[in-house]
Amino acid sequence: MKFVSSIVGHEISAVLHGVDKKLLNDANFLRNVIIDSLKRDDFKILKDVDYKFSPQGYTLTVLLSESHVSIHTYPEHSSVYFGLYSCKAKGHGKKTYKNFVKSLKPRDVVVDMRDVIVKK
Amino acid sequence: MKFVSSIVGHEISAVLHGVDKKLLNDANFLRNVIIDSLKRDDFKILKDVDYKFSPQGYTLTVLLSESHVSIHTYPEHSSVYFGLYSCKAKGHGKKTYKNFVKSLKPRDVVVDMRDVIVKK
Repeated sequence: MKFVSSIVGHEISAVLHGVDKKLLNDANFLRNVIIDSLKRDDFKILKDVDYKFSPQGYTLTVLLSESHVSIHTYPEHSSVYFGLYSCKAKGHGKKTYKNFVKSLKPRDVVVDMRDVIVKK
Repeated sequence: MKFVSSIVGHEISAVLHGVDKKLLNDANFLRNVIIDSLKRDDFKILKDVDYKFSPQGYTLTVLLSESHVSIHTYPEHSSVYFGLYSCKAKGHGKKTYKNFVKSLKPRDVVVDMRDVIVKK
């Protein structure tokens, strides 16, 4: 596949706190939420890879034409990290992020968004 | 595998500018640099997934017990994005980042490092 990046990308990193522990161990639910959110946000999915920890915890990365998204859950802390980087355009990925938050129903969220200069 | 995260993780995101275009298309070289750097920084590697774009560009994510690292190269801009998140400890991952930069010999680098609160 051919892909030419924008000169400015966009990065979002967040931790969702106070999430239902059952959701944080439900690999199928989490993967489906991410894949569905990416498709609705016009990302092109290349490959994905995940891992289930024992006795708890789930981690997933999806490779995209536009870069990647990763989640790491911490049922022991009732929290989940969400990290997305898109080199498609400024602000791209917010829709994915918002849908993820909506689906996980956290008590509160700490989020950081920033532009990433790919070409100087 | 069992892994209990720290209550504070560490995130590094950077773009290396002015890198030799040949290195940015050399998948074996790039993957070896990342894997070697992670091992020297005491990360536990779980799985990795990559993709070679046509006619140029390479993307790689490595899943870790301690979270993940991703790179995305832009030979058209002579640049490469590096993103690492470790939930092992404050500051963890700096050694991996420094070794990556040393190996790529960029003209200059824009880097952002931040603590990530996993447990509130």
